[in-house]
Amino acid sequence: MTNPAPLCEIWRGPLAESTHVGHAVICDDTGQIVEAWGDPGKTILPRSSAKMLQALPLIESGAAKAHGLSTEQLALACASHNGAEIHTSRVTQWITGLGLTDDDFRCGAHLPFGKEESEAMIRSGATPCQVHNNCSGKHAGFLTLTKHMGWGPEYVEPDHPLQKAALEAFEEVTGEKSPGFGIDGCSAPNFATTMHGMARAMARFASASEGANARQSAAVQLWQAMVKHPELVAGETRACTELMRACSEPVALKTGAEGFFIAIIPGRKLGIAVKAADGATRAAECTIAALLVRLGLLEAEHPAALKVMNAPIKNWRGIETGRIVPAAALR
Amino acid sequence: MTNPAPLCEIWRGPLAESTHVGHAVICDDTGQIVEAWGDPGKTILPRSSAKMLQALPLIESGAAKAHGLSTEQLALACASHNGAEIHTSRVTQWITGLGLTDDDFRCGAHLPFGKEESEAMIRSGATPCQVHNNCSGKHAGFLTLTKHMGWGPEYVEPDHPLQKAALEAFEEVTGEKSPGFGIDGCSAPNFATTMHGMARAMARFASASEGANARQSAAVQLWQAMVKHPELVAGETRACTELMRACSEPVALKTGAEGFFIAIIPGRKLGIAVKAADGATRAAECTIAALLVRLGLLEAEHPAALKVMNAPIKNWRGIETGRIVPAAALR
Repeated sequence: MTNPAPLCEIWRGPLAESTHVGHAVICDDTGQIVEAWGDPGKTILPRSSAKMLQALPLIESGAAKAHGLSTEQLALACASHNGAEIHTSRVTQWITGLGLTDDDFRCGAHLPFGKEESEAMIRSGATPCQVHNNCSGKHAGFLTLTKHMGWGPEYVEPDHPLQKAALEAFEEVTGEKSPGFGIDGCSAPNFATTMHGMARAMARFASASEGANARQSAAVQLWQAMVKHPELVAGETRACTELMRACSEPVALKTGAEGFFIAIIPGRKLGIAVKAADGATRAAECTIAALLVRLGLLEAEHPAALKVMNAPIKNWRGIETGRIVPAAALR
Repeated sequence: MTNPAPLCEIWRGPLAESTHVGHAVICDDTGQIVEAWGDPGKTILPRSSAKMLQALPLIESGAAKAHGLSTEQLALACASHNGAEIHTSRVTQWITGLGLTDDDFRCGAHLPFGKEESEAMIRSGATPCQVHNNCSGKHAGFLTLTKHMGWGPEYVEPDHPLQKAALEAFEEVTGEKSPGFGIDGCSAPNFATTMHGMARAMARFASASEGANARQSAAVQLWQAMVKHPELVAGETRACTELMRACSEPVALKTGAEGFFIAIIPGRKLGIAVKAADGATRAAECTIAALLVRLGLLEAEHPAALKVMNAPIKNWRGIETGRIVPAAALR
């Protein structure tokens, strides 16, 4: 077992006040490691970075086609969205079309991730519904598949046929038997794999060919939907959305809780997985941006890059007090 | 240089999903290390955990006495408060008594730390003032000293006589020359020292005798004020407040940004400094609770301890998905 590697430093004045370590793996279309930092064998939970894996059965089963899902809906199925109107209106319309209501979700309710949306809801005195949950698009996908197959309503139970289908897809695409699962924030099982497995899965997405088989076709549809609708995958001000828009070629990006981040790079047939060992989002965002710069896919001086990498830290009076800097080995 | 040591693990299902490492030092009244984890020589910024050091000149100068400061005001001078009414009303009254207004602060404005207070302010459509800044009590202390000494209004400038006095006190009590400073969230300089220096300073507070000299008397007044008014040092639901109330004997506790925490334990003449290397508050809170349990000052089963240590992590539907567990070496 290799130790986690330095990912980034939080500087304040003359001092690296805090430091983040973790793991990062870049895989190619043969499943081999191109470059790695930390421990590629580390077992991880990819959290929401696995949403495009969880969405494979939705397409492979024919459910997406039968329900005429749009690329917007496929992007939402892979999203951890801000709960903005562009997200909630589309998800509500989607489940209404299925003849379902907010009560059919099993993701739980929380205030929108987006600061503006959250403050607007607090001001209005409204109570968040399950559609505001950042995972409601994924759950709308789950509900579509459940309805299409005639399965029971408790679709987040680990022994529900939907989760069994998700596990089968997950293990095949990561190329590893999953050693277990945790229950995610949205109550769905989140299957474990290694850093190598997750990067391999992302490379499988990046190198998939439309029409080669059902799985590859589904993978292509999903990354294409993400790239086409970056604002649906996360939302304004968020790293996923802003970095996808900033890349010089199509790259699908997706954050996950506890410091996860992935990239699918179809033009290079490469996949990336990043995990901050301590679970810090700021470290995962800085690291993925640094790797995109390293691969020549992102200008280091692009505002979206500068927001998360070499980003100034400002205090309550707007004074720059520090900076978040990627580790030298990533540059 | 020793590597940071394991502090705690975030478990989800069968997996330690994230891990925190860092440094912790326990010092006695001779300034010697009793126990240490990680690197006692690590240079750190103690952030708001240094507020009682920054408040020493306020008392030593005679300013606190001349202005008749109460123990409540001294506790607020050491506080990172929630911006609740009990905090803001007292700080406002304090600076009004000095003939000053919110504009005389140099801490900047932010929404109250407290969730309830913050949501109430958003609902009301009000804009936060500088008095809502979690550091406004410290700044009221700075303003009191500035007024008493007839110094200029820019009291957060590093070359202002107030900051020079704070540095002198900081270096004497830590027993180390400070190698530099960062600018804090509230715009005041935050002086660097080592983990050993900070734990030594806390032990100096813990072993100070009222009447021995001006510095020791000031130290006693400050920790006593913190212990007497735990609700003013942070606020309801916060770890500082709840853990101070939970300890079986007087212990002054204070969090700091980027994963800092200190304890002053007068009954044992011990001081503790904790720093999560990655800056995570959850790790610092778990570690200080584990050390208080280790020293027999806190029941492991006390609700305040269970909230930060061995604490269940619940998801949006209230399902327990994991747990935060202190490292074996701390137990």
